[in-house]
Amino acid sequence: MDLHALADRLSGRASRYDASGDFPEEDFADLRDQGLLGLMVPPRLGGSGATFAEYTDVAMRLGSGSGATALIFNMHASVTGALAHMPDELVRQFGAPESFFESRDRVLARAAEGALYAVAMSEHGVGSRLSRVRTSYERTGSGFRITGGKTFVSGAGHADAYLVAARDSGSAEPKISYFLVPAGPGVEVRPTWDSLGMRATGSHDVDLDVEVDGDALVGGIEGAALLLAQVMPQWLVASYAAVYVGVAQAVLRHGAEHLRERGLQELPLVRARMGRADVQVAAAELVVREAARRVTDDPGNPETNRWVWRAKLAAGDTAAAVAFSVLEAAGTSATRRGHPLERLYRDARCGALQPATSDVCADWLGAAALGDNPDGVARW
Amino acid sequence: MDLHALADRLSGRASRYDASGDFPEEDFADLRDQGLLGLMVPPRLGGSGATFAEYTDVAMRLGSGSGATALIFNMHASVTGALAHMPDELVRQFGAPESFFESRDRVLARAAEGALYAVAMSEHGVGSRLSRVRTSYERTGSGFRITGGKTFVSGAGHADAYLVAARDSGSAEPKISYFLVPAGPGVEVRPTWDSLGMRATGSHDVDLDVEVDGDALVGGIEGAALLLAQVMPQWLVASYAAVYVGVAQAVLRHGAEHLRERGLQELPLVRARMGRADVQVAAAELVVREAARRVTDDPGNPETNRWVWRAKLAAGDTAAAVAFSVLEAAGTSATRRGHPLERLYRDARCGALQPATSDVCADWLGAAALGDNPDGVARW
Amino acid sequence: MDLHALADRLSGRASRYDASGDFPEEDFADLRDQGLLGLMVPPRLGGSGATFAEYTDVAMRLGSGSGATALIFNMHASVTGALAHMPDELVRQFGAPESFFESRDRVLARAAEGALYAVAMSEHGVGSRLSRVRTSYERTGSGFRITGGKTFVSGAGHADAYLVAARDSGSAEPKISYFLVPAGPGVEVRPTWDSLGMRATGSHDVDLDVEVDGDALVGGIEGAALLLAQVMPQWLVASYAAVYVGVAQAVLRHGAEHLRERGLQELPLVRARMGRADVQVAAAELVVREAARRVTDDPGNPETNRWVWRAKLAAGDTAAAVAFSVLEAAGTSATRRGHPLERLYRDARCGALQPATSDVCADWLGAAALGDNPDGVARW
Amino acid sequence: MDLHALADRLSGRASRYDASGDFPEEDFADLRDQGLLGLMVPPRLGGSGATFAEYTDVAMRLGSGSGATALIFNMHASVTGALAHMPDELVRQFGAPESFFESRDRVLARAAEGALYAVAMSEHGVGSRLSRVRTSYERTGSGFRITGGKTFVSGAGHADAYLVAARDSGSAEPKISYFLVPAGPGVEVRPTWDSLGMRATGSHDVDLDVEVDGDALVGGIEGAALLLAQVMPQWLVASYAAVYVGVAQAVLRHGAEHLRERGLQELPLVRARMGRADVQVAAAELVVREAARRVTDDPGNPETNRWVWRAKLAAGDTAAAVAFSVLEAAGTSATRRGHPLERLYRDARCGALQPATSDVCADWLGAAALGDNPDGVARW
Repeated sequence: MDLHALADRLSGRASRYDASGDFPEEDFADLRDQGLLGLMVPPRLGGSGATFAEYTDVAMRLGSGSGATALIFNMHASVTGALAHMPDELVRQFGAPESFFESRDRVLARAAEGALYAVAMSEHGVGSRLSRVRTSYERTGSGFRITGGKTFVSGAGHADAYLVAARDSGSAEPKISYFLVPAGPGVEVRPTWDSLGMRATGSHDVDLDVEVDGDALVGGIEGAALLLAQVMPQWLVASYAAVYVGVAQAVLRHGAEHLRERGLQELPLVRARMGRADVQVAAAELVVREAARRVTDDPGNPETNRWVWRAKLAAGDTAAAVAFSVLEAAGTSATRRGHPLERLYRDARCGALQPATSDVCADWLGAAALGDNPDGVARW
Repeated sequence: MDLHALADRLSGRASRYDASGDFPEEDFADLRDQGLLGLMVPPRLGGSGATFAEYTDVAMRLGSGSGATALIFNMHASVTGALAHMPDELVRQFGAPESFFESRDRVLARAAEGALYAVAMSEHGVGSRLSRVRTSYERTGSGFRITGGKTFVSGAGHADAYLVAARDSGSAEPKISYFLVPAGPGVEVRPTWDSLGMRATGSHDVDLDVEVDGDALVGGIEGAALLLAQVMPQWLVASYAAVYVGVAQAVLRHGAEHLRERGLQELPLVRARMGRADVQVAAAELVVREAARRVTDDPGNPETNRWVWRAKLAAGDTAAAVAFSVLEAAGTSATRRGHPLERLYRDARCGALQPATSDVCADWLGAAALGDNPDGVARW
Repeated sequence: MDLHALADRLSGRASRYDASGDFPEEDFADLRDQGLLGLMVPPRLGGSGATFAEYTDVAMRLGSGSGATALIFNMHASVTGALAHMPDELVRQFGAPESFFESRDRVLARAAEGALYAVAMSEHGVGSRLSRVRTSYERTGSGFRITGGKTFVSGAGHADAYLVAARDSGSAEPKISYFLVPAGPGVEVRPTWDSLGMRATGSHDVDLDVEVDGDALVGGIEGAALLLAQVMPQWLVASYAAVYVGVAQAVLRHGAEHLRERGLQELPLVRARMGRADVQVAAAELVVREAARRVTDDPGNPETNRWVWRAKLAAGDTAAAVAFSVLEAAGTSATRRGHPLERLYRDARCGALQPATSDVCADWLGAAALGDNPDGVARW
Repeated sequence: MDLHALADRLSGRASRYDASGDFPEEDFADLRDQGLLGLMVPPRLGGSGATFAEYTDVAMRLGSGSGATALIFNMHASVTGALAHMPDELVRQFGAPESFFESRDRVLARAAEGALYAVAMSEHGVGSRLSRVRTSYERTGSGFRITGGKTFVSGAGHADAYLVAARDSGSAEPKISYFLVPAGPGVEVRPTWDSLGMRATGSHDVDLDVEVDGDALVGGIEGAALLLAQVMPQWLVASYAAVYVGVAQAVLRHGAEHLRERGLQELPLVRARMGRADVQVAAAELVVREAARRVTDDPGNPETNRWVWRAKLAAGDTAAAVAFSVLEAAGTSATRRGHPLERLYRDARCGALQPATSDVCADWLGAAALGDNPDGVARW
């Protein structure tokens, strides 16, 4: 099954999962069947060894079928992609033990076999500001004990493990580390997710009071979280972007279908709305693909990072704007629940609000355009 | 209870009715208690004898509490207001029998006693184009038989009677008349309403196969529907407008509350969004009030009608635009279902799509600005 | 000659004065003939005793003829209006000597006889921030010596006197006073004005090294400038607003004329542009008139001041936006110099950039909407 | 001298040529020195043999130095590029005589030696609608006599020859042909150009009453003009696009410089304006480059043509929008004539108005997005 056919299947189920808010089980069965959970995993560990550019293509197409499914997939790809693409030398240089590489490979190999990973980063009152995370950890005999509460954990209750950001409870200055925490006792999902859009992501709260082994420490080193945000901003800032371009493409597709069915394609104001939406979506796709290409070819370059922020801003704003305009062209009959444009109008609004929000991106990019260091201000 | 307190009560229930999609019984109990169902009814028949300007003020305040309740109320006010404000001379001149005045007074008196009226004008595939209505009527011995199907009937199943637009089945050229059809056998509600926004209006489909008395003919004359649309465009075009200004005001109020609670009022981009939203809402309110003042003082004047179309465009576009922007300022935490901004984002999008849509209004106003006759094109 | 006819005369000359950048002598001859230089002067001193609302009406109409002429007039009206409307009790309360009232009356009487006053407030590197003014004054035997340089002095070289903001050179903390400095030696105009738009205002630099009598001190008291900005924000913030609504109205008028001449009024996208522009301009006019009405009826009220800031934002943004859109509808043939739309596109852009800029207004209004004290931040 | 240095030289002279409206002699001396007049000419005829993608890169960089110079260059490149890229087989298939190839090569070789060509297509009251051209030609003994008047001829009076669209005076149905008419007697320039922006293009009117040789007929065949518009829309629709992306880039560059000089880069609303402008410009550049790449790799493909129309819309709208916003951020000091942002604000507005206008592009793209044939409506 090619990606186009897969996206069609997701699209056919999207209204149902949106209505129920259930985890899209059938979608993930398809993704597993297609080997997509191993997309970012190196071939030597059983995966496809995809680049960021290849990930972007997949996420965009999935997003054009179902935004919610693509967002959950994006979280899994962020965990596996960041692990797979972490440069070994850098990791060694920062003092990671050799055991890290073994544990990393086990994590990746499990993904290739179909394990699903989720991200538990945000917290109430903290948002996605990593440096302010209140979930804490302390060393135990053989590992760590992690305590706290997380929000907006897409796929909660259906993931095999969670990437958790936590602070060292014994350190005065902020030392934020990542752990990969297996699902199970001590990881409690509170079903709080009931959202305007992207309803099937099941981004519930998760309460943590759990002990993990030493090799759950991602990167094998403590305090790496903020560093990773700066070194690999693509996974934190722009991996959503592809999903929202897919959502925007779905708006165009369903909009055209609806307007033709109603015989409205002859109305000049309808054509003008569609024409302007078309060029906005085409432009956003190019920006996201350009960012992805650069991340693949020249990761970490300041100019690459600038494209990463552009991608997030362009995708989030474009999806929301075209959904707003095309729904207006489509008219009241498209606002009935179950109509794809009704769902897309809600889904599309979410992109600009997810971190880094569009206003934060505009600030980052403005600082860069004005010759300042955009990372001079703490953003995480 | 003043309107401010009443709006607060509606606001307190709005999330619940939005979630269930039920008819807002408690809101209408309050409206009845306050005598608002008789708002447009002349004092000699037990009502308040309100002007269009006074109606506008009431609708705006109700809309700032609950858009859905205000929309249902707007339909009732349109029926009673159009009846109450129809100039007697004009009606006589067009050949209405004297019995019309008695029947009209009965209808209005019942409203003052608490009867609720709804509007059944739109149809599938026809929208709100009155001249294309397919629901038909034929003369029977003592009255008329009406057959057909209607859509978007706000308050369906809870109204005491429905204003139905229908065409004379025996006439070659379009002769569209209005009937006030009592609820009861032959008026079947199909619960089809399940919408993006304004969910509590219960704007279901209604199937008609019903006989009515001769005095159910509104205006006492056949073929008056299109004439009324031109003579009193305010009820067809702009009575919604006040509701959506109210919705926009609610966005500002709930936005400010949310942003202060989160301590976000210090962010310059948040302040700028709120400042620009503030002036947009203030301007839309003035446009709607200006239209209402002119309808009251100088109904039917071409310049008055121009303000009526401006009011619809300004209110619909403003509500949608400020809900879009303020939700972005408020962030992901405001997208949780049950949060007022989440509901308002959905409710506010509906105004520009209701007839006359914003694009139609822009065309009408552009024709007028260019010195053409904007009613030269058939719009209903 | 009524205002409509007067605006037509200004309109007929606007292209010529725009091209040459000369002071609009003929326009001001007309204004003098019509007694408009005495508009704000009390009848007992030979003027018309206009309210702020009446001023607004005049400025809007003049602005619809020629934005530049209306802006120069606005400066004159600000000086005479602020003097005429200063409450006597407040002035006494702040310690003004009785001689102030005599000198004020002389100034106003001269305006009624045809004297023209200009405003010299802004400075290089300071803008319109009154509190940072570097032009200074010191007491001499009988009066003051004022030294410094001013920018953006509309009507420079053609005014009979200049309202100059200056700081007390002997005071450690900022004490900013206003002086009315007669044209003559020591007031040197440097012809620096050569601007994108509003070219005929001749808003040149003015260098000051001049001695003035004691009664040149406006209000008769030192340090009143910042206080006046807070007490009467209308003259500092919103007196421009009426001018830019006039400019926006001119865009509509000339746009409609051009489009009809070219037979473009049938194009749906042209009509939509004109229709949306029409409602924007109508709304901005209402906002500015509402502010003016409140300033007239309830000056100094916090809610009045809020409308003052709204008026500035609405007028500046609307003029620029409609000029941008209508020029696009009109097409390349309207970009020829000498075409009214070409000039209006440049003139209209200036409003949002004049103090208080649109971004500053949005911040002020946002703070107010969020329940903060918008004057808590120093803005002047 | 690389393109970057060349653009800097153009940029340094742009204000002067804008002020005087003179033809940019020095710029074209530089372009000649750099061999850029032969950019599109095949190497066998002494040129660089550039692709459309390479042309786009050059035009963008020149446009970032001086929009006006780049527009004149664009016209020359359109003539030489269309000639150089016309597929020989197609030309033969349409019946061109073998002599055509010799004459074409002479024209191209002269360009490589420094000859400058201009385009004379538009007419009063006709605009760029090729099918409505009124300039006519008739056969004479050895060639053609051409009579008529043209408008918007960039570089008029400084070109060595003009590409003239004319209709066969003897044909009942429209047969529009192109001729390359040498400068000289019978080609009279009327200096009518005095425009809002792009002032140095000298796009004057040209009156024609001239006899030309038979080989002046471009393509060697009559009636080819409309065919070429469809087959190679890039030169008619999108060759401007690169210029306006360059203009938009210049807005960012001069905006950043101005804002830093004034110390305004710390203002959050300024940063946000710059950040949003940055991503808009980056996106427009990608769209134009994508179109150019596809024209180069897969000319004539319907999907290629779709990108061509997107490029025109994206570039024209983006340049105007960012100039509008960045000038507002920069403030009044940047509106002084001679300031680059003052000129760019005027230049940037012209792109969306040049054919195909943005509204026409939106209609074309909307029709395509809705599955209709966008060339089904006559556009030329």
